[in-house]
Amino acid sequence: MDDGAAGTRDGRAALRESHGEDEGTHMDVNIGLLGCGTVGAGVVELMRRRADKITGMTGLRPTIARVLVRDVGKPRAVVLSAGQLTNDPQEIIGDPDIRVVIETIGGIEPARSLILQAIRAGKHVITANKDLIALHGAEIIAAAEGARVDVLYEAAVGGAIPLIRPLRESLTANDITDIKGIINGTTNYILSKMTATGADFSAVLREAQELGYAEADPSSDVDGLDAARKLTILSSIAFHSAVNLADVQVTGIRAVTARDVYYARELGTVIKLLAAASDRDGELTLHVRPTLIPQDHPLAHVSDAYNALYVRGDASGDLMFFGRGAGSLPTASAVIGDVIEVLRNVSQSVPGRVRTLVHSHKPVNHNAGEPARHYLRMTVADRPGVFGQIAGIFGDAEVSMETVLQKRVDEGRAEVVVVTHEVPAARLAAILDTLGGLPDLARIETSMPVERGAY
Amino acid sequence: MDDGAAGTRDGRAALRESHGEDEGTHMDVNIGLLGCGTVGAGVVELMRRRADKITGMTGLRPTIARVLVRDVGKPRAVVLSAGQLTNDPQEIIGDPDIRVVIETIGGIEPARSLILQAIRAGKHVITANKDLIALHGAEIIAAAEGARVDVLYEAAVGGAIPLIRPLRESLTANDITDIKGIINGTTNYILSKMTATGADFSAVLREAQELGYAEADPSSDVDGLDAARKLTILSSIAFHSAVNLADVQVTGIRAVTARDVYYARELGTVIKLLAAASDRDGELTLHVRPTLIPQDHPLAHVSDAYNALYVRGDASGDLMFFGRGAGSLPTASAVIGDVIEVLRNVSQSVPGRVRTLVHSHKPVNHNAGEPARHYLRMTVADRPGVFGQIAGIFGDAEVSMETVLQKRVDEGRAEVVVVTHEVPAARLAAILDTLGGLPDLARIETSMPVERGAY
Repeated sequence: MDDGAAGTRDGRAALRESHGEDEGTHMDVNIGLLGCGTVGAGVVELMRRRADKITGMTGLRPTIARVLVRDVGKPRAVVLSAGQLTNDPQEIIGDPDIRVVIETIGGIEPARSLILQAIRAGKHVITANKDLIALHGAEIIAAAEGARVDVLYEAAVGGAIPLIRPLRESLTANDITDIKGIINGTTNYILSKMTATGADFSAVLREAQELGYAEADPSSDVDGLDAARKLTILSSIAFHSAVNLADVQVTGIRAVTARDVYYARELGTVIKLLAAASDRDGELTLHVRPTLIPQDHPLAHVSDAYNALYVRGDASGDLMFFGRGAGSLPTASAVIGDVIEVLRNVSQSVPGRVRTLVHSHKPVNHNAGEPARHYLRMTVADRPGVFGQIAGIFGDAEVSMETVLQKRVDEGRAEVVVVTHEVPAARLAAILDTLGGLPDLARIETSMPVERGAY
Repeated sequence: MDDGAAGTRDGRAALRESHGEDEGTHMDVNIGLLGCGTVGAGVVELMRRRADKITGMTGLRPTIARVLVRDVGKPRAVVLSAGQLTNDPQEIIGDPDIRVVIETIGGIEPARSLILQAIRAGKHVITANKDLIALHGAEIIAAAEGARVDVLYEAAVGGAIPLIRPLRESLTANDITDIKGIINGTTNYILSKMTATGADFSAVLREAQELGYAEADPSSDVDGLDAARKLTILSSIAFHSAVNLADVQVTGIRAVTARDVYYARELGTVIKLLAAASDRDGELTLHVRPTLIPQDHPLAHVSDAYNALYVRGDASGDLMFFGRGAGSLPTASAVIGDVIEVLRNVSQSVPGRVRTLVHSHKPVNHNAGEPARHYLRMTVADRPGVFGQIAGIFGDAEVSMETVLQKRVDEGRAEVVVVTHEVPAARLAAILDTLGGLPDLARIETSMPVERGAY
């Protein structure tokens, strides 16, 4: 057994002596915080507000002993003493009195190395870092199980919304077949604004950047990568499989135009960046892509920076979880919830209480996907007989059209929108292929699935 | 220390020897099931489906050893051996090999006595019994803490929806200020049908009874008591206070007419039986009452037998949880989720891992309530000057009208609907009093609050 576990054993003996409200004494648990940006400052603030409550619940008093920052002199949203601030990570990782590390730096390095060092030193780790868990979760969880410490990351997906713990604990009586939702606030804000104002993607993105809702380099959000990382994390837990980021087929929202938003509304729908994963008899399919959601579907009403996730279990049926997907205090709500879990486990000497059950690497099918209705916006040559030719191509592929809109014509070209009946992904791909080979006839501008109506 | 706790200690020693997947051996844990109706049969069915998964997660194999039924000869939805069935509760309560008892009988007695006996015998208890927990929860939880056993009741509220555990664990970093939602499926089904068809309450109730969605004696549902019991349970946990059923002000849906449903739609709303509780600086207000919900509010789209609960925390902001509130397998999903928690606690020797933190009996204000818009439907005398008199009464009470509808006149009487601007509860009560004293002028037929728009 390594030093970390031995340290935990010593800690247990000390705890047995002092634990319990009845004695009126509470053992302090020192916490090291890595990073003090938006999330870190929220954690400091909320930990202060709830210190007494946490002590009442766990018998342990959490104290933020040290905070790692790049510049100890920089003004911050929360007041910290000079003694608390450090720019040397070893003052946290190397301090045996610090039992719990909260990581809010974000990104892969140095977060990954610091977390692995903390785990090896026998410290429990709480992180809000979705990028790290999506890419290196397996390595980190294996290290934690080896060292018998907790690594919790409720805040990595869905901000304040309890998602990880319900999937890992409350819903484990189910075989979960589907998870589906809106898990990126930036794209949801942009699409909500485009829907409300009719403005184009680039104008709304610029405004979102000015307001701080989108990063200067927005690609992680608008290209769907952030949602794909979160879907990787959720799918791994829901389906008990080691899902990789590369397993997710990703389409971002850059190609969604004001025209699409307009047609979507005409069709009684709104466009959302939908993350969806399914398990069909042990075969997984994972998508992130703009999708038309019917107005009577609850996901259609999830606007701005809110997140929502549908979960379908074989026993539970459909469930939905909804709330703020980001922000300083909402994220801190999830982080501190994890702190309370860690302290409870520490006080009861059950580190690593809930292990992640991974059955296997389930196979991933990149071509599959449920049969779905599809929205296609095309620019077509505006001459007699063209529409008949297009209709013929659909007919030959045995794809029937549910709705056809032809709204605007200029300079010899018309814009045609087709919504198909439900069609298997392969047959849709065949049509897109055929039309792609006839550029004089028609050009596919946008293709998006249309979600089924309300539950 | 009593016999129950001693029994638990012995059990721990045995577990330490045999636990762990690594050794390839799994200790069986015998479970006794009280009742085998709709929920009980779902529990048997789902336990069978998930036995291997549960063993993989907890290192313990759950076995339903014995099932208490009234008539062992009656045909059932699930196949049970003659040896499993018994009509003698002592064959479960008195069997030292049965470690866990699942109660699905419902109602107060004999469920209460059997659960207390099981607890005293050192058995862990899982129940779906909202009536019992609402009325005798404090007694049962105190007994469980004394005997150091788990009593879990996720299935008591919201069927498959994880509500109890998120409130007790994930969200405890928050001071929760509001919980609000639709937590009775029968009334939601009836109101949804009234909205969809325009039919009257009594006709829809009859149909719901024929379809099995409403009981032969529907009063517990339609008079709001079932929702009030669930609100009592949720509020106790959310607000860390010992809330009593009598603390909830309850109005059922019997007085909601097809006319109200019609006017609600004219006003861009739908009528729902809303359960709502708030904590304002340590003072609680709890209501169950029919409420007009604006169409753009997510709760307006929760139809038929679905349940949804909003939770507002000071850090998390608004959260919503949605899903099936009843039914055999959805309820079993929550029960088996609790079984997994109990088995995990057993295998790690941490019975009673999460204690319910009750600060105090917080005071309850029966007169308060946030200022709200109110819908009033009145029958008024159809003669000149009447409306002026009514408007004068509103004006004198400083209650301004937002909307006035006068839709139908017959036999010298007119129907007038008023929606007020936001008004404190006391001022509204004053108007209702004044109008109540002028029966020749106007009679108040219905009065319901109007919920604010979407989050």
